[in-house]
Amino acid sequence: MSVGLKIPSSIFSIEGIRLSAISAGLYNKKRLDLVLFELDKDSVVSAVFTKNKFCAAPVKIAKQHLGASRPYYCLVNAGNANAGTGQEGLDSALKNCQKLASLTQCDFNQVLPFSTGVIGEEFPENKINTVLPELVKKLSSEAWLDAAKGIMTTDTMPKVVSKQLRLGDSVINITGIAKGSGMIKPNMATMLSFIATDARLDKQALNKLLEVAVNKSFNRISVDGDTSTNDACVLIATGKADAATIEVNSGEAFTVLENALVNVFTELAQAIVRDGEGATKYIEIEVDEGETNEDCLAVAYQIANSPLVKTAFTASDPNWGRILAAIGNAEINNVEISDVSIYLDELCIVRNGACCEEYTEEAGKEIMMQEEIKISVKLAVGSAKETIWTTDLSHEYITINAEYRT
Amino acid sequence: MSVGLKIPSSIFSIEGIRLSAISAGLYNKKRLDLVLFELDKDSVVSAVFTKNKFCAAPVKIAKQHLGASRPYYCLVNAGNANAGTGQEGLDSALKNCQKLASLTQCDFNQVLPFSTGVIGEEFPENKINTVLPELVKKLSSEAWLDAAKGIMTTDTMPKVVSKQLRLGDSVINITGIAKGSGMIKPNMATMLSFIATDARLDKQALNKLLEVAVNKSFNRISVDGDTSTNDACVLIATGKADAATIEVNSGEAFTVLENALVNVFTELAQAIVRDGEGATKYIEIEVDEGETNEDCLAVAYQIANSPLVKTAFTASDPNWGRILAAIGNAEINNVEISDVSIYLDELCIVRNGACCEEYTEEAGKEIMMQEEIKISVKLAVGSAKETIWTTDLSHEYITINAEYRT
Repeated sequence: MSVGLKIPSSIFSIEGIRLSAISAGLYNKKRLDLVLFELDKDSVVSAVFTKNKFCAAPVKIAKQHLGASRPYYCLVNAGNANAGTGQEGLDSALKNCQKLASLTQCDFNQVLPFSTGVIGEEFPENKINTVLPELVKKLSSEAWLDAAKGIMTTDTMPKVVSKQLRLGDSVINITGIAKGSGMIKPNMATMLSFIATDARLDKQALNKLLEVAVNKSFNRISVDGDTSTNDACVLIATGKADAATIEVNSGEAFTVLENALVNVFTELAQAIVRDGEGATKYIEIEVDEGETNEDCLAVAYQIANSPLVKTAFTASDPNWGRILAAIGNAEINNVEISDVSIYLDELCIVRNGACCEEYTEEAGKEIMMQEEIKISVKLAVGSAKETIWTTDLSHEYITINAEYRT
Repeated sequence: MSVGLKIPSSIFSIEGIRLSAISAGLYNKKRLDLVLFELDKDSVVSAVFTKNKFCAAPVKIAKQHLGASRPYYCLVNAGNANAGTGQEGLDSALKNCQKLASLTQCDFNQVLPFSTGVIGEEFPENKINTVLPELVKKLSSEAWLDAAKGIMTTDTMPKVVSKQLRLGDSVINITGIAKGSGMIKPNMATMLSFIATDARLDKQALNKLLEVAVNKSFNRISVDGDTSTNDACVLIATGKADAATIEVNSGEAFTVLENALVNVFTELAQAIVRDGEGATKYIEIEVDEGETNEDCLAVAYQIANSPLVKTAFTASDPNWGRILAAIGNAEINNVEISDVSIYLDELCIVRNGACCEEYTEEAGKEIMMQEEIKISVKLAVGSAKETIWTTDLSHEYITINAEYRT
């Protein structure tokens, strides 16, 4: 199940990036499960990682390598998270980096490893090393969709977003892939995302763009309120487009690129929600008129993560009392129930903390039956506003997660 | 479904308390849904209420009345929470208090109202007022089990705990009831609980005992991480037992009574978890060797509220990686994954942050198949320890909450 999720008809390749995806036999069934990104030597790379304190072995190594050297390769596997695997897990990930480095004549710390899958199982280092020569041999600039397939776990669809924009006289391409559908909440959920552009950026500008874009996208979604050990988001700029170097906050070009990247990141983040485990609804939550942005986010996540709100959406039940109760649980000050309004799409359901006079259960039900719904909350204490995206909580979520390893 | 929950064979009545329960027609089906407690004039009463900022009308009124006067009656209905009902809801609850006061010749602020049920629907003030004379007429000292039935919502079983203890030459009785099975997390979840004793206590001792007992019981459970608008826990001491007045921290008598009350409160809190919505497992989570009690609780609740841990329990799947990931998400400092150990009952599953060498999936599976399971986590940074109780997350939870109003 996924809600309104499509594969784009055009996927623009990014000059300076080659990719490949093969099956290393990491699943019982045959599927793409190992992906390689090769980055042109002039590329700059920036990445953010999970805030889970028990982060996985590849996260530790990728952070070290990123600090020590200029990356030439990102090696990504599905099927095993290499988390909760102790020193052996670290050794295994390093051996994969070393093998790839020897095949491609680079330094082992120019390889960034990424893993996603089950936590706590022995890492299949040998299965991966065995197929690395084939993986290198298959590198091409066209394999974005295969790469998106190769990093899927419980995802039901690959997630690719690709855009072209004009920057003065130049054409800039941006293409990104993402995976993740459970363990999704802000601060990098069980997700991996790799986004590349052929724009030419200095490192400072790249870091800034990644920070801004992640904050407006991957840090604004929630499926089940869990945060995994393995999340990472990588932004690569190859500099191959025929355009000048863009420096941080350097005027119009920076702004145009920032907007384009925010769009790509947001579409990828929304794709993760649309394919949320067991999702039958895609829900946008907008909290407006808050005192601070933090207050708006606290309210939005309290709604998004309430199992009672989520199950009401599954049932298409306009049980707005659960939304009101969730708002009351948010850790914010100065909000009075008697000032709060709540809307489903354009329909006012709560005004001044009680049911709208003109509201009818039939009108509420009609909106709740939709696949895509917007909840708007007005707190009436200020002018801050935030928007996040989430899903419902269905039987399918339980089935997927109760049977994940079987 | 409930896990290991029983109705006690003996329920001791409490001299100074009379109760009644009838059907006021607040549900589509015929069931007990309105309950009255009558308190002897010498009783002392203490209560704690939900921390949800949007608390229900009866909570606001009960707090006011408790501050203003000595309570003679607790009037409790199921079927409608009288929350999100604005000024009309407050007026309705007050009218019920006034009607009862006129029937019983007391002041309206000597009546404490309590409600539980759906949020945001018009409060059935008239249905309740109509049957108040019959409710008063039926008062008896024996109706504890009926009262427990009358306050149920999605509960599948009534919850009663009753104990007798010796205090010097005297016999002291304690009997309590509780309801609640969803929207259950610390800080008073969707629960109501009324506990009475015939011990003689001054108000300060009663307040202290309520605070201690709630903190070790109702504030140590979680079903779904939601907190409702209506929760309340009321402790009544009638002073009818043939024993001296117990003052706060006054030596052995206080300690003995404190232990007995903590036991009764804890059994009632555990009963709520055992009857948690859709519960198929009853899970005790003990976090030991923490730096502070707050740290231990943060870790325990992160495990208890993780949908991925909960669904693994539903599936009897010893997917300990999810427990490890949940610990890593707790907002605590100074814990290193390489020091952490995790046990299922007596079986070590994680030592030094990785799978125990002697652990086998079969042994883990065998314990996960049990209805009652204990998770122990050792953080290896200090000597603080906390225990909480929770349930799994099953298909039945979704069914119950998706169909609650239909």
